[in-house]
Amino acid sequence: MKPALLAIDWGTSSLRSALLAADGAVIEERAFPRGILTVPSDGFATVFDECFGDWRAANPGLLCLMAGMVGSRQGWQEAAYCACPAGFTDIAGQLSWMALEPASEASRIAIVPGLSCERKGLEGDSALATLPDVMRGEETQVFGALQTLQLQDVPDLVLVLPGTHSKWIRVETGRITSFTTFMTGESYALLRQHSILARTLPAGDSPFNEAAFVQGVQIALRGTSLLQTAFSVRTLALFDRLSPEALESYLSGLVIGEELRAQSLDANQRVVIIANDALTQRYQFALVECGIACDSPGAQVTWAGLSAIAQTLHP
Amino acid sequence: MKPALLAIDWGTSSLRSALLAADGAVIEERAFPRGILTVPSDGFATVFDECFGDWRAANPGLLCLMAGMVGSRQGWQEAAYCACPAGFTDIAGQLSWMALEPASEASRIAIVPGLSCERKGLEGDSALATLPDVMRGEETQVFGALQTLQLQDVPDLVLVLPGTHSKWIRVETGRITSFTTFMTGESYALLRQHSILARTLPAGDSPFNEAAFVQGVQIALRGTSLLQTAFSVRTLALFDRLSPEALESYLSGLVIGEELRAQSLDANQRVVIIANDALTQRYQFALVECGIACDSPGAQVTWAGLSAIAQTLHP
Repeated sequence: MKPALLAIDWGTSSLRSALLAADGAVIEERAFPRGILTVPSDGFATVFDECFGDWRAANPGLLCLMAGMVGSRQGWQEAAYCACPAGFTDIAGQLSWMALEPASEASRIAIVPGLSCERKGLEGDSALATLPDVMRGEETQVFGALQTLQLQDVPDLVLVLPGTHSKWIRVETGRITSFTTFMTGESYALLRQHSILARTLPAGDSPFNEAAFVQGVQIALRGTSLLQTAFSVRTLALFDRLSPEALESYLSGLVIGEELRAQSLDANQRVVIIANDALTQRYQFALVECGIACDSPGAQVTWAGLSAIAQTLHP
Repeated sequence: MKPALLAIDWGTSSLRSALLAADGAVIEERAFPRGILTVPSDGFATVFDECFGDWRAANPGLLCLMAGMVGSRQGWQEAAYCACPAGFTDIAGQLSWMALEPASEASRIAIVPGLSCERKGLEGDSALATLPDVMRGEETQVFGALQTLQLQDVPDLVLVLPGTHSKWIRVETGRITSFTTFMTGESYALLRQHSILARTLPAGDSPFNEAAFVQGVQIALRGTSLLQTAFSVRTLALFDRLSPEALESYLSGLVIGEELRAQSLDANQRVVIIANDALTQRYQFALVECGIACDSPGAQVTWAGLSAIAQTLHP
């Protein structure tokens, strides 16, 4: 198959890429531990050439689309946020094209814009009357998932992209109308590694314990704040009511359950989970506790999203 | 004045002490950076002698009472928890006396027991049907505060002891009926020092900004979870809606506001705050936003509590 697109997901901690055919089929994939935090501000072109120089030399004029934090102020080139509500054509139409030397460079390289939205803040206060939220990269996954699952015409859809900073995203008939960030994965890591609970939990990773995870979800759903429920990891261990090996899964359930408690989900709401297999499984277990059904389109949705954007450029 | 009691508050990170007269008056105070985390498990007697040997030599037979984590499994000698509901006479009657060499040692040394309580957990599950909670040291502060403020006969009282692990304590006619731990101070420190927000906030301490603190409290009270509201520190900085110097106070307001949101406080509930001056002020500002009035007995309540226990031993 002839490559039609170099698709790149360049995030904070990792750099993933794929050569895609015109129909979106994956020809070859590569991943590098070169997230933007590892790249000096003037080093992006060098890393790009190191990682993809051979692909580009073998495919003169190849289109390259990048999504993720590469378009942030700390990335290669800042791509302005696209304001919500925003649909697929909004982000496809506002690509940030790179101005690269030499000018004869035939390949075209662009960064997909992130999204911003505003939520209700404080009454009558000018600066905090609304609170902004932002995403970079997840918008491409969402539009890829909508296409993969053929959900562009659903009037009201909720998607969750779990992770370091989980995104809960509302989509109405193919347009992202609002979204909210939760510091879930990061808070779990902080509690696991740096809090007093690190001294309570066994040092190494414990195998996933579904029963303890679900108990954590249930406690969180009945609670009012993770500030309070998290301390039960310590006291349940102190009173020998959970085995040491179960504590890590219980804490994971508390943190993911807290994220779900904070949503206003109807019991008949379907939720689309976009995550790796392990995290998808945990959110499925947790959503079952809320009586919520879910779909999962798998992990290739970034490539589907970038491929769909590329097709708007090759009409 | 002749010393009647060596009063010690030996916590996780600090060791505070006072020589008290029979009427509770403070004769002399000392503090050491020798919290139990700095003491090897067989080193407590040595540290005790280094810190208080001269006082004890000058006052043969002096009674010594200790409160705090010194009575935990990681402390000098484990003092069994006293189960709630528990009143002053319950803890005064269950002191854990130290068995020390030489046997001729005339001084008497005892540790005040901590308290445990059980809250409703999961339906129909034996191990998690109730969730335990624990305190060590705060019980002595509470009984000291009740005496200092003459509140032993109030039918329904709420006290908050803010800190690394804040305690919210319900007291009915002088008896502690239940309490709840919130990992508030620790969560603030984790977010401030180890999360992505550490990269958003200025490196050094900023002066306290009351307006930004109160805005944080208001956002937290209208929110559903700190997992979500905390991310606004980053986005408000990204969109230049809060000055860099205001962000730290705003985050402090978010975290303390989250603790208050999770309480079920009536607007006519009075709350007693037991904390140092700086923290007392922040909780006063935050409670005003909830329409709650508060009292504050000052910082000497541990000495008042230990002195009251000593008086039960010298009838």
